[in-house]
Amino acid sequence: VSEDRFLHRLFQRLPPRPEAVAIPAGDDCAAVRPEAGRLILLAVDQVIAGRHYVATGPGAAAPDLVGRKLLARNLSDIAAMGGTPRYALVACAVTPDLTADWLERVHDGILALARDWGVHLVGGDLATMPAGTVLSLTIVGDVAATHVVRRCGARPGDGLFATGQFGASFPTGHHLTFTPRCAEGRWLAENGYARAMIDVSDGLFRDAMRVAVASGVGVDLDLDRVPLRSPATDPLAAGGDGEDYELLVAVAPERESDLVAAWPFPEVPMTRIGEFSARTAPRMIGRDRGGMAINGRTGFDHFGGGSA
Amino acid sequence: VSEDRFLHRLFQRLPPRPEAVAIPAGDDCAAVRPEAGRLILLAVDQVIAGRHYVATGPGAAAPDLVGRKLLARNLSDIAAMGGTPRYALVACAVTPDLTADWLERVHDGILALARDWGVHLVGGDLATMPAGTVLSLTIVGDVAATHVVRRCGARPGDGLFATGQFGASFPTGHHLTFTPRCAEGRWLAENGYARAMIDVSDGLFRDAMRVAVASGVGVDLDLDRVPLRSPATDPLAAGGDGEDYELLVAVAPERESDLVAAWPFPEVPMTRIGEFSARTAPRMIGRDRGGMAINGRTGFDHFGGGSA
Repeated sequence: VSEDRFLHRLFQRLPPRPEAVAIPAGDDCAAVRPEAGRLILLAVDQVIAGRHYVATGPGAAAPDLVGRKLLARNLSDIAAMGGTPRYALVACAVTPDLTADWLERVHDGILALARDWGVHLVGGDLATMPAGTVLSLTIVGDVAATHVVRRCGARPGDGLFATGQFGASFPTGHHLTFTPRCAEGRWLAENGYARAMIDVSDGLFRDAMRVAVASGVGVDLDLDRVPLRSPATDPLAAGGDGEDYELLVAVAPERESDLVAAWPFPEVPMTRIGEFSARTAPRMIGRDRGGMAINGRTGFDHFGGGSA
Repeated sequence: VSEDRFLHRLFQRLPPRPEAVAIPAGDDCAAVRPEAGRLILLAVDQVIAGRHYVATGPGAAAPDLVGRKLLARNLSDIAAMGGTPRYALVACAVTPDLTADWLERVHDGILALARDWGVHLVGGDLATMPAGTVLSLTIVGDVAATHVVRRCGARPGDGLFATGQFGASFPTGHHLTFTPRCAEGRWLAENGYARAMIDVSDGLFRDAMRVAVASGVGVDLDLDRVPLRSPATDPLAAGGDGEDYELLVAVAPERESDLVAAWPFPEVPMTRIGEFSARTAPRMIGRDRGGMAINGRTGFDHFGGGSA
C-alpha cells in the first residue's frame, strides 16, 4: 500500500465533515473556521511500539486499542484545560513488516473514539522507517477564553481533588481502554471549580508536583486517600507508575462542599486527596509516610533509560 | 537528559511569545487566539533518519539542517494554501544513542528558521525508541477565508506555472537548505493569481497530476521548459525525484501576462511549464516526449519499499 493510496482511502472513510471544516484532509493543509471568543488549544503526543504498548508476542496490544490510546492520551490533555476536542492530525512512521491491515485497524481505533468525542481527522502523514513504529497525534481543541484552566492557579489552602483511581494501569489494561475525562474537565472549568488542573500521565506524584511548582505553592498529598484501581496495588507504586489519565484539580476551600454536592458524574469518583500549602516543597502525608518528599524522580518519565 | 528537563530548557530559550499566544508551551495544551475572518490551516509532516536525511557516516546531515528541513517542509504546505505560518508543535522519537547535544542542535535549526518566519513553537513531545529517529512537526497557520487556495481550482486553458528549479535536490543539498515559498504563495493568493496551488514534495509529475486530478482536468507538462537546478540533470529524473519544495500554480489565461509583469521576486524564477486542458489524462509534451503519460508511479513516494 502506498502512502497516497492509504491516506486517500483513510480520508474517504471519514464521516461527513463538520460545518467548521472549510477544507478537509487531502489538500496541502486542512482549513478550519475558529469560533469567535474561543481560544484554540494545541497539543501533541506520541505512542511508541514497545514503550507505550506491547508490540509483539502473545501480549501484543490489539491495533485498534493502540490507535484508541493515541487519541485518548491527547483528549486527556484537552480535558485538563477544560476544553472541547475538535480536530486531529496523525503522523505514522512504521516498520516495513507491519501490514496495511494493522495500520488500518489502528486508524479504526482512532476513528471510533474520534466519533465518540466529535473529533474530526483533518490531516495525516505516513512513512516507513527501517525499524520501530511511532504514532504521533496532534490534537486541536477550543475553550472559552474566560474558562480555560492552567496548571498555575493553585493557592495555599486549595483542596487537591482527583477523578477516578490510580495505579496498575498497565496490568489492568487501563492504559489502553481508559475514558478521557473531557466531560469532567469541561464541567469543572465551565462551573468555575478548577483553579488549576492537569491530567495524570507521568504519575500522580510528579503531576501533582507540577501543579504545585507552576503555582508557586507546596502540596501535601495524603497517600491514604488515593483511590486505587486495583486493591493489591501499593499506594507508593500507584503514585509513581503513571498512565492514569485522571484529572488533578485545585479547588478553592469555599467551593469544595459545593463541588462534592454538585458533581454530576456518579460513575467517576471525585476524591479529595490532599491540600495545597504555603510550603514550597511538595510532600506525601498519611499513615507511615509523614513528610516524605515528592520529587521529579518519584514520577514516571517516558524519556527514561537513554543517554540522550 | 530527561524529557521534562529537555523540554523545559527548550521552552525557556524560546523568543518572547507573540500577543496571540495566550498560553505558551508547558501546560497540557498551548492556547492561541485566532484572528477574526481567517481560517486556521493545519498540516503534519515527518522527517525520518535514513529516509529524509543521511543519519550516519561521513555524509551525515548536520542536526540543525535536519531540524531546519522538518520545519521548512511544513512551511511549504502553508505556502501552497496562500497562508501565513504561525505556530509549530514538534514530536521527537529518538534512538537512545543520540546525544542531547544532537537533539538540541536539531531544535536550534527549527528555532532559527521559525524566527525567520515569525513561527512560534507552542508544543513538544520527546521520547526514546529502541532504534531509529522520527521527527514530526505540526504546523498551524492562517489565511483570509477569501484568499485560501486549494488544489482543485484549475480549469482547462489555465497556465501551469512553477517557482524555482527542479531536480537534483539530494545531491545539491537543496532538500536541506531550500527556502520555503511562503512569501510567493501568499503574494499569489492575495493578488488572486492562483486558481489552484500545490507544493512539489513528491515530484513535479506527481504533484502536477494531483492538481489536475483534484480539478477534474488534464495537464500538458512541457518538459523542455522545466528549469533545472543542475544543468547535468535529466529532465525526466528532475520531474520524478521530488523534494523540490517549489510551488505549482494554475493561472487563468487572462492573468498570465499580468503575473509575469508584476512578479515581485526577482531572485525566484516564475516559469510557465505547461497548460491545463480538457483532456483528463495528464501527459508530458516537449521534444521527443510527445504525449508520454504521467501517472502516480513517475512521482516519488515517501512510503516506498515496504509491504505495509
